[in-house]
Amino acid sequence: MTETFQNALNEAAAQAQAYIAQALAGQTGSIAQGMIYATQGGKAMRAFLVLESARLHGLTTALPAAAAIECMHAYSLVHDDLPCMDDDDLRRGQPTVHVKWDEATAVLVGDALQAMAFDCVLHVDATAEARICLAQTLAQASGLRGMVGGQAADIAAETAATPLTLDEITALQAGKTGALINWAAMAGARIAQAETSALKAYGDALGLAFQIADDILDVTGDAATMGKAVGKDAAAGKATFVSLLGLDGAKRRAHYLVQEACDALSPYGDDAETLKEAARFVIARTH
Amino acid sequence: MTETFQNALNEAAAQAQAYIAQALAGQTGSIAQGMIYATQGGKAMRAFLVLESARLHGLTTALPAAAAIECMHAYSLVHDDLPCMDDDDLRRGQPTVHVKWDEATAVLVGDALQAMAFDCVLHVDATAEARICLAQTLAQASGLRGMVGGQAADIAAETAATPLTLDEITALQAGKTGALINWAAMAGARIAQAETSALKAYGDALGLAFQIADDILDVTGDAATMGKAVGKDAAAGKATFVSLLGLDGAKRRAHYLVQEACDALSPYGDDAETLKEAARFVIARTH
Repeated sequence: MTETFQNALNEAAAQAQAYIAQALAGQTGSIAQGMIYATQGGKAMRAFLVLESARLHGLTTALPAAAAIECMHAYSLVHDDLPCMDDDDLRRGQPTVHVKWDEATAVLVGDALQAMAFDCVLHVDATAEARICLAQTLAQASGLRGMVGGQAADIAAETAATPLTLDEITALQAGKTGALINWAAMAGARIAQAETSALKAYGDALGLAFQIADDILDVTGDAATMGKAVGKDAAAGKATFVSLLGLDGAKRRAHYLVQEACDALSPYGDDAETLKEAARFVIARTH
Repeated sequence: MTETFQNALNEAAAQAQAYIAQALAGQTGSIAQGMIYATQGGKAMRAFLVLESARLHGLTTALPAAAAIECMHAYSLVHDDLPCMDDDDLRRGQPTVHVKWDEATAVLVGDALQAMAFDCVLHVDATAEARICLAQTLAQASGLRGMVGGQAADIAAETAATPLTLDEITALQAGKTGALINWAAMAGARIAQAETSALKAYGDALGLAFQIADDILDVTGDAATMGKAVGKDAAAGKATFVSLLGLDGAKRRAHYLVQEACDALSPYGDDAETLKEAARFVIARTH
């Protein structure tokens, strides 16, 4: 990881967390505590993508959108970790929200984080049209046609009679993890009301590379480094990019996608170097 | 119930349900089915309040906002009914979503309905500023400072050492049920970018009357008529408006609030008769 990218990532995490903490200032009780807890400790890759894609368009006012996508992502993790969903006890190296508090708190923390995501994104300093576009696309990326739909397909796959095909897994992941990553990558262009196609192509490739890397790390990583359970997919006999492409095939595909993501940024020239670094970072841990 | 009000209520329910079904057209799978299931069969009082407050301002374009508030309300019911929350098997006379499908489906149906609520509300045919105001106030009404906060306080009260006071219950209910009712009542003025204070006063009084009526019916109603479990609060030893004010005291307070709600509408003159009917209807079943 280059120093520039590492600094940008750290800065994004610190800024998004500070924004969220400030928005929740004065709120007491376990829901507010759980909301802050759930939005801390992650890499904040999505917040970084928002801030960096905004910087590409000369904007420094994207922080509320960066906070919004971290709230949305955090809510999805809190709900996905619930016993009735993936039943995970560990997240980012810490007890999950339903373990630290209880299930009711985890449901409500996730619910409140989703509402907060929309509140945040509407606070972006941009034209009214741009703010509406951001909020509408965020609703679509996180809802039935995006993240929730992908998560539902993932759960359905666990009890399906036949394993998913590569096309089906690709479609599933485009919703489950791809939609929010894509939204984050495109946010800068949307705030600037500029052409979005280059960042869309970047986000599409990045999102898929991200998920393939996740599947690889589920096989090659260890729980201590990852801060969450590993090996669950293989144990459950679930089809993954690794089970379908093999470990080497999955790595090759991820590398190809990272190249595709970088190539998509050519209209931005050298300015896009930090976003390219981010794409390379996504697969760096899988070597 | 007068014929005018009954017709307006039925019409609101039919229109909101048709809008939601249309928005989900082509979507298959249990999440989409659950979303339609969860938004059907209710009285659609909130949708009615949106459409009627819009009509007061000469607007007939509020349907997406009416659908939005029904999605938001339905999501809250689906999550509140979960085993880790209120653990209810029956809602609107039908099995709850987690009973008809399973808990994971219920979590995701609720999550997707919340996202859909924001998608819908941003589709209202109004100025960009009005749409942003609608979405932002909806996020606040449904989040930590509104509905979710109220639900969390309600759960916390169950294990509190001392029963809640009247002020505490009033504050709790202002969040849990009041915030969405208030939003619905104010929506018409917000879409029209008109003065909101009369509808705010109406919505405040109506929301509280609504909850007091609910507490009364939890004591005097039967499960068959109500379509959901009754007597749960008393069985749990929870403080309610009835336990604190007595049955007659609660009825008097509800009547007073309905009068207050009707008085608040005086700036609208005779045009507001149907909204006044709605306020009277809220307590009519408690006689």
